[in-house]
Amino acid sequence: MTSGRSTRDHGDPGDAPTVPPPLTDPVNPARPSAAEEARTIAASTNTGTLATLTEEGDPWASFVTYGLLDGAPVLCVSNLAEHGRNLARDNRASISIVAPGAHPDPLASGRVTLAGHVEEPQGDEHAAAREAHLSAVAAAKYYVDYSDFTLWVLRVARVRWVGGYGRMDSTSGRAYEEAQPDPVTPLAAEAVSHLNADHAEALVAMARALGGYPDTVDAVCTGLDRYGLDLRLNTERGLAYTRVGYARPLDSFDELRSATIDLTQRARQN
Amino acid sequence: MTSGRSTRDHGDPGDAPTVPPPLTDPVNPARPSAAEEARTIAASTNTGTLATLTEEGDPWASFVTYGLLDGAPVLCVSNLAEHGRNLARDNRASISIVAPGAHPDPLASGRVTLAGHVEEPQGDEHAAAREAHLSAVAAAKYYVDYSDFTLWVLRVARVRWVGGYGRMDSTSGRAYEEAQPDPVTPLAAEAVSHLNADHAEALVAMARALGGYPDTVDAVCTGLDRYGLDLRLNTERGLAYTRVGYARPLDSFDELRSATIDLTQRARQN
Repeated sequence: MTSGRSTRDHGDPGDAPTVPPPLTDPVNPARPSAAEEARTIAASTNTGTLATLTEEGDPWASFVTYGLLDGAPVLCVSNLAEHGRNLARDNRASISIVAPGAHPDPLASGRVTLAGHVEEPQGDEHAAAREAHLSAVAAAKYYVDYSDFTLWVLRVARVRWVGGYGRMDSTSGRAYEEAQPDPVTPLAAEAVSHLNADHAEALVAMARALGGYPDTVDAVCTGLDRYGLDLRLNTERGLAYTRVGYARPLDSFDELRSATIDLTQRARQN
Repeated sequence: MTSGRSTRDHGDPGDAPTVPPPLTDPVNPARPSAAEEARTIAASTNTGTLATLTEEGDPWASFVTYGLLDGAPVLCVSNLAEHGRNLARDNRASISIVAPGAHPDPLASGRVTLAGHVEEPQGDEHAAAREAHLSAVAAAKYYVDYSDFTLWVLRVARVRWVGGYGRMDSTSGRAYEEAQPDPVTPLAAEAVSHLNADHAEALVAMARALGGYPDTVDAVCTGLDRYGLDLRLNTERGLAYTRVGYARPLDSFDELRSATIDLTQRARQN
């Protein structure tokens, strides 16, 4: 995990809103690393868009399904399709995966690009890759064994993660492979709704005592993961964002309730 | 529009199900052309995945938002982002767009790849492109005028449309530009549900009398557009698919009700 601060370094036309800085140091702004965020997004769905090279070397975007083998996307594509012919000719490829969700603003979505080259898995790895694809894409049982379909494993060399506005980072294929998907994020939506509906006062207390914004007026939880909560605040100085981390990372969603109770108690003790 | 028949030409491992052919010629199997299908999919959403070339010439897939100017995707991307740097260095690009919808099998989704090169619009076209992007992507008002963002128009040279299993075709940028999005498809889902819930007997009559399958046992409407209805049938010979076209193409969704009543009457007269 990392504790980096997001940067918003676009060429400002002069009237962009400024975000007030914290007045005290956030107690524990821990959040998932880019590699963990990328693994979590890759594990959140079974569809993405592949970029390959045409015969002329032009970039070709196409919709694909995938499974994951230790985080590596496993594709099953027809050699009759353009992307299949492209991969057979030049094995360089990348895949863009967008986390499912209903953001009114699409650029608030988390997404990741995994770039590298594809290889046909052999022997035991072929069997594992086949199983990984079938377990993620049920309909593949109808065509996985057609002679014109090839299983490809994307060997990820480079990763670009974008978490939404102002949150983004790059990481290596090695870091991506070694990271784990977040066990809490896939179940977060309902917990976020519950916190906002029933524990608004606790969120304000957390933002004031642990999040670095003692001038918080109200607070909304916008997301959570195994390390802590993302909060959007109205402060006396304007709109701000902060992060409140649990005492230690969670290993399962079941630990979330006690971790948020602990955060609330610590916030109210301060 | 075209009346081509879909082909299922994968390398058959020997046990693929066969689809029974029609016993009579379908009366009017008209359906949208690939260019029309592509325009309709492009108009159905405001997000896609761009493929560009990295400095090394590798294919790079990345999530983007877009608006449409006479069917041409208008992007607004930061030059600080990798895809923005890629486009500034090499203007070859393609975009993959997936029609929104909740198919349990993702490969049943309609999708399209539009390939060509990007250009920065100038003068009046810049103003029109800016407006096209803003009208499709509301949040772009916050960054469209940042100095590091560039508007790009994708000049579409080549189109690949995939309508789901076994329905796919290629077309030219010219045909794509000259086609129009379907006025009926965006509102089809509720009409399809209504036909299936309340008019199952009429669908069977259509399949028997107009769709070429007099041995239809039951029929489900799986989609509709300005030219007609897609039907999935159980026949005495097994599962089949057919197409029933209206007497003439519809110019608006409001004409659908009378067109389907007309189809029902013609089916029952036969």
